[in-house]
Amino acid sequence: MQLDRIRHSGLHSKIMSAEQASEFIKDGMTVGMSGFTRAGEAKAVPKALAERVKKHPLKISLMTGASLGNDLDKLLTESGALSRRMPFQVDTTLRKAINNGEVMFIDQHLSETVEQLRNHQLTRPDVAVIEAVAITEEGHIVPTTSVGNSASFAIFAKQVIVEINLSHQAELEGLHDIYIPSYRPTRTPVPLTQVDDRIGSTAIPIDPDKIVGIVFTNQSDSFSTVTPPDEDTANIARHLVRFFENEVAQERMPANLGPLQAGIGNIANAVMMGLLESDFKDLTMYSEVLQDSTFDLIDAGKLSFASGCSIILSERINAQVFDNLDKYRDKLILRPQEISNHPEIARRLGIIAINTALEFDIYGNVNSTHVCGTRMMNGIGGSGDFARNAHVSVFVTKSIAKNGDISSVVPMVSHVDHTEHDVDILVTEQGLADLRGLAPRERAIEVINHCVHPEYREAMRDYFERACLRGGHTPHLLEEAFSWHTRLEEQGSMKKVQPAVPPKLVSC
Amino acid sequence: MQLDRIRHSGLHSKIMSAEQASEFIKDGMTVGMSGFTRAGEAKAVPKALAERVKKHPLKISLMTGASLGNDLDKLLTESGALSRRMPFQVDTTLRKAINNGEVMFIDQHLSETVEQLRNHQLTRPDVAVIEAVAITEEGHIVPTTSVGNSASFAIFAKQVIVEINLSHQAELEGLHDIYIPSYRPTRTPVPLTQVDDRIGSTAIPIDPDKIVGIVFTNQSDSFSTVTPPDEDTANIARHLVRFFENEVAQERMPANLGPLQAGIGNIANAVMMGLLESDFKDLTMYSEVLQDSTFDLIDAGKLSFASGCSIILSERINAQVFDNLDKYRDKLILRPQEISNHPEIARRLGIIAINTALEFDIYGNVNSTHVCGTRMMNGIGGSGDFARNAHVSVFVTKSIAKNGDISSVVPMVSHVDHTEHDVDILVTEQGLADLRGLAPRERAIEVINHCVHPEYREAMRDYFERACLRGGHTPHLLEEAFSWHTRLEEQGSMKKVQPAVPPKLVSC
Repeated sequence: MQLDRIRHSGLHSKIMSAEQASEFIKDGMTVGMSGFTRAGEAKAVPKALAERVKKHPLKISLMTGASLGNDLDKLLTESGALSRRMPFQVDTTLRKAINNGEVMFIDQHLSETVEQLRNHQLTRPDVAVIEAVAITEEGHIVPTTSVGNSASFAIFAKQVIVEINLSHQAELEGLHDIYIPSYRPTRTPVPLTQVDDRIGSTAIPIDPDKIVGIVFTNQSDSFSTVTPPDEDTANIARHLVRFFENEVAQERMPANLGPLQAGIGNIANAVMMGLLESDFKDLTMYSEVLQDSTFDLIDAGKLSFASGCSIILSERINAQVFDNLDKYRDKLILRPQEISNHPEIARRLGIIAINTALEFDIYGNVNSTHVCGTRMMNGIGGSGDFARNAHVSVFVTKSIAKNGDISSVVPMVSHVDHTEHDVDILVTEQGLADLRGLAPRERAIEVINHCVHPEYREAMRDYFERACLRGGHTPHLLEEAFSWHTRLEEQGSMKKVQPAVPPKLVSC
Repeated sequence: MQLDRIRHSGLHSKIMSAEQASEFIKDGMTVGMSGFTRAGEAKAVPKALAERVKKHPLKISLMTGASLGNDLDKLLTESGALSRRMPFQVDTTLRKAINNGEVMFIDQHLSETVEQLRNHQLTRPDVAVIEAVAITEEGHIVPTTSVGNSASFAIFAKQVIVEINLSHQAELEGLHDIYIPSYRPTRTPVPLTQVDDRIGSTAIPIDPDKIVGIVFTNQSDSFSTVTPPDEDTANIARHLVRFFENEVAQERMPANLGPLQAGIGNIANAVMMGLLESDFKDLTMYSEVLQDSTFDLIDAGKLSFASGCSIILSERINAQVFDNLDKYRDKLILRPQEISNHPEIARRLGIIAINTALEFDIYGNVNSTHVCGTRMMNGIGGSGDFARNAHVSVFVTKSIAKNGDISSVVPMVSHVDHTEHDVDILVTEQGLADLRGLAPRERAIEVINHCVHPEYREAMRDYFERACLRGGHTPHLLEEAFSWHTRLEEQGSMKKVQPAVPPKLVSC
């Protein structure tokens, strides 16, 4: 225990075990916990809660910034503690419960959750559980590796539990910039005009009397599972770098491209890695999650500043970053996700938004969330916050999955998260389709020629041509639009060719 | 001819006929014209152009604010002048050409067109044709009944043609507020924090040397075809007023509700009319189009201020408003559509967005544009600008159409313009579904119980229940999801019951 991490001495009496703290959480409560993209989540209290619930069942509605690490969503799901969950998750066990209709999942734009809390459109948390590196003299909370929704959860909750995690460097203090928009109808502009603007405070300002428990922990964030680029993701990166080079040549982008946003995961990370080998310099990021590529780019002298709302790193690079925070201190800011993803800022700064699609269709509609239109993967996350208001909205995916049994480009997406109105550029390892200023029929030709895998190209062209014969601004054969998906579910492959051996039933 | 309408005397020499002015428009050009929701469009030059093209074929790409009146889109389409058209239209003839693939139509969020022009992502207009009430001493253009995209078109075009329309009252001058966002990367916040803030100039500031022709006209805007509320639309209004009353009681909305936005058309107009009979007062609007209801509410002392980007009125009320502009002068502002629809402002002010759906589905996805997923009606317009960032995003429609052969609530929408993430409230004459904070399965029950017409309710419940048996976060039967639409196209009705007489083929 390090009492110097609690600089408000009146709070020393609130130190307790995770088990004791978890008792503040009661049946039927709404609970807001820190944690965004498996970074900076409260660790001990949810674990103690899961243990307790196994013996004494209760149900809570749990909201976080985004996904939790350390298998916490798994433990909470298995304990039966979750009746409702928002606004994002990535856990296999929880995903299954959501798709079985056992946990009600509310899949939201990540910038909107606290706005809806502020306006009482969602039930405010009874209890907030926030991971911290320290509590200040004023009793304010210094977050760890993510800000997420922590600030507003702590401000709105009646009771706050703080987990002081000694595994996080105390030097994280000073990195955060906590800005909370004022209430309507007298709200003023968010006063941020450059990615490195500091507009708030370095700790979450709450009345220390609301802090009912402080728990010391010493457990790391989960490592990111990001993998090095493979041939396909490297090709996606190459197509995009070539596109950027041309945009600069055409004076549609500044020499440093403008602020970059990249979604979480291997493909977006690979795209950022692709910039390492490019000639671009003085790059900046205004993103939600800062991954390995952010720090590789800083180390290479390519990236001059990164604003995000969380840091999640793989084992390869984690210690090297957090043990040398001073090196990055003047190049980083962590903000609340309401600000990192704010539409006002995305539009003002002219962000280049790069997000991963689960599938997209020939007209540029993107599915980010639902496998075969019904089964939730993770959630829309921040992709919609950025895509709608970006200078250029890019979606990337490999053209095929499951050894070619799935085409990620389909006649019609089985679920729409981003409409044709919000999608500018589509990229697969096959190539890049620039949809800007094109009508649907023109878009389809671009997508078929540049993004569809050769194994599916003729079938797609055939669909499009037959649909055009029937007419319409956006030609479709409704009775056939999902035939690729239903074939996958029935025969294990989107391909029309029948296998010689009896079909293996693959769930798409 | 009234020379006093051209106060920059150096421009008197530029007066010419519409035919002469139309000669500046050449084959292959991009042309930007004023006009938004059939208000304030350039009238004589496009008509002269259509005449000329009949004899001497040429093709242009035409961009406007939104729809044009006086059958101009019809005349231009029939003449064969249009190769491309953006970002919105409402004309039957043009619609047919779009759906036949003869005119390439780019359906855009109305706040985004000039942003894409500013960044050279769309081709800037070679020629702008702008209707005006006057030209100032500085050579700046005073718009008429709409601002739309006129300011940026005039700023970006190489050559500008001004139509001075004497049928518009000179007293319109002073009503407009022209604000143009600065260029990135040094853009500053849009300095608007209240609906009645004036942040710009009353005329469009351009170099008068760019004005190559001035044409005098004397032709009115087309009247709005808005009809008085019927029983269904009055019921929709009643459901929504009751919802608003409860929101105020629950302190989720202020007593005056906050700034209202209402889409164009009969249903949204009827909803606003419903507020006439309510107890609400001190209402304000921050909308794109100001219709009859705006002025009825002002006359009744219910509405204290209305900000829009165009005024379009029916014959009932048109003269009474425009002949008494002084009465309304301190209660009105007309802004560029980039500002009236700006996501930054919609989020800051906390707008209540009320827009019309063509159809919506049980999970809250909305189709605003495509009949049976393929045929364009009008375009998304500003609905997406508002819905994404609104305090509350409402979509309204009658539950059935074509004497019950069409259900406006369907298992899955055949085209998505607004995703489940952007839709809070759905209303039909049957009732209101409040989807806030609900998971998809909960949303479906709300929609089925409150919005679906009784003639379709059992069939919808049956679909939903069978889909739930198959599982998933958003249960669907993909092979059946569009069966209501395909039945309509094949049998003339979405209903399962077979008609006794051979089916009349109705195009949906």
